[in-house]
Amino acid sequence: MRTHDPKGFSIAVVGAGAVGGYYGARLAQHGHDVHFLLRSDYDVVRRRGFVVQSHDGDFNLAPDQLHVYNDASKLPPVDLVIVALKTTSNAALGSLVGPMLKSDTAILTLQNGLGNERYLSDLFGAHRVLGGLAFVCINRTGPGEIRHTDHGLIRLGEFVGPSDSPRAQQICAMFQASKVHCQVLPDLSLGRWEKLVWNVPFNGLGAALDAPTDVLLRTEDGRALVAGLMHEVVRAARALGIGLSETVVNHQIDRTRTMGGYRTSMQIDRQERRPMEVEAILGEPLRAGRAVGVEMPLLEMLYRLVRLVNSGNLRE
Amino acid sequence: MRTHDPKGFSIAVVGAGAVGGYYGARLAQHGHDVHFLLRSDYDVVRRRGFVVQSHDGDFNLAPDQLHVYNDASKLPPVDLVIVALKTTSNAALGSLVGPMLKSDTAILTLQNGLGNERYLSDLFGAHRVLGGLAFVCINRTGPGEIRHTDHGLIRLGEFVGPSDSPRAQQICAMFQASKVHCQVLPDLSLGRWEKLVWNVPFNGLGAALDAPTDVLLRTEDGRALVAGLMHEVVRAARALGIGLSETVVNHQIDRTRTMGGYRTSMQIDRQERRPMEVEAILGEPLRAGRAVGVEMPLLEMLYRLVRLVNSGNLRE
Repeated sequence: MRTHDPKGFSIAVVGAGAVGGYYGARLAQHGHDVHFLLRSDYDVVRRRGFVVQSHDGDFNLAPDQLHVYNDASKLPPVDLVIVALKTTSNAALGSLVGPMLKSDTAILTLQNGLGNERYLSDLFGAHRVLGGLAFVCINRTGPGEIRHTDHGLIRLGEFVGPSDSPRAQQICAMFQASKVHCQVLPDLSLGRWEKLVWNVPFNGLGAALDAPTDVLLRTEDGRALVAGLMHEVVRAARALGIGLSETVVNHQIDRTRTMGGYRTSMQIDRQERRPMEVEAILGEPLRAGRAVGVEMPLLEMLYRLVRLVNSGNLRE
Repeated sequence: MRTHDPKGFSIAVVGAGAVGGYYGARLAQHGHDVHFLLRSDYDVVRRRGFVVQSHDGDFNLAPDQLHVYNDASKLPPVDLVIVALKTTSNAALGSLVGPMLKSDTAILTLQNGLGNERYLSDLFGAHRVLGGLAFVCINRTGPGEIRHTDHGLIRLGEFVGPSDSPRAQQICAMFQASKVHCQVLPDLSLGRWEKLVWNVPFNGLGAALDAPTDVLLRTEDGRALVAGLMHEVVRAARALGIGLSETVVNHQIDRTRTMGGYRTSMQIDRQERRPMEVEAILGEPLRAGRAVGVEMPLLEMLYRLVRLVNSGNLRE
């Protein structure tokens, strides 16, 4: 990726659900050359553009302000690919992202869970890959329709080498200039695992029990389950050499208590009978912990429970 | 309890839901002097008696064939008390059972789970207490209305001393003579724990996930959860000196596969929003295992999950 005025960047967004649609639309709204690769929403977005209700200000993007595609081979080569595909479709990334790469194209994954940077690195080379964590409350309310209700911060960094490279800073500046709060992470792995400490219990238990965050924290049993899972994730991270402190557990529980009732993406997927991101959010951390000899009995059981829920066999 | 012709026995049934109603009605049908202590169904049963649809033959018990009470102090002292109260009401046993005891009255608990013989012993003396396991598919379909769809075997024995006492054999003979298949257990604890090996996973996971037995056994994840929980229960039993073999795990899983889809009592309680027998079926085995140093991480997590479900907080 060339490090010049980011207005000149060309950007592809792969997977324009809520997250890809929102951030891509923000970049396009602020004058960037954004190319959306869509699947189910292609026809509607091509005709009507994006309609964004946002607590940072509503906006529409008309069809003539957009480049939309339903075929990866039709996109031009770009400077930056933003991957916002649901991780359950990761197997498609090779054919989706490959055609739009130049020798210096950067790839930023905003996907949930663990393992996505590794997956992209194995396909396209680690030197291309950055990871970003999206802290955002956002829903796709219909084709091309996005409701952004809270937060919006992206924290990003390089997958290999110094996390806060000039390229990472440049991408971050581009988001900042497009009404998206962004921070460069000093250590991407630390950021990922810190987010997993939250995502593993709240997504996992939320999906297993069909329960939002406030219900999980309302009883001593729920708090013990949440805290126990968080401690397992912290232990795995520490065994992997990541400087995560056990204090993050109480900190995150206290913070979550102030949030009210929040339905995680996996709970919503359960309710809407869509595939859940079980492997990225639960399976990958479990395997990463096991690989360094950490016992994670709670996560192991939760993983199996959620896979059973996700199998569809409960709906009869 | 006098060991003479059991036709002369007087019997009280405490808690005449499906199990107490069915077995009590069978004994009354065959000429025994049975006194039913009822709560919610008192008015209906006093007016209409019991209506039993049974795969061993339908029958009715008219009001004039029955003694029914809604106040324990009104029952005469009896020779045998059959306790079939839901374990969630165990705190009431002192005042319910106390008034009907003579010096030699025996107490047979047919309740689910672990700890009921101990509870009755602490209240009334261990010498009185026998435990029975009811292997029966039975539902209360309305006040005084019972549907008995399969099985029916009672296995019983003394709580202390030789399990197969003359008293145990006499009670068993009384059931046998009343169209109830009955066996005297050579070892009550072995029988209880063998039943727990089945009840812990199928009741516990069934309640946590709202899933019947066939769904739990349909996927590799479900089978691993069931088997893992069963192995924990077997390890706890063995640490308690009970001669239970690990082979019981595969045997019970194979047997359950032939049963089709079965909703356990705790799953039904969840669906009907009634209190679940969490402590008797999950909490007591967990505490018994811990007391002898057995780690039961799966059961510990399951216990907390089911307590959370049972708290009612999921229904919003």
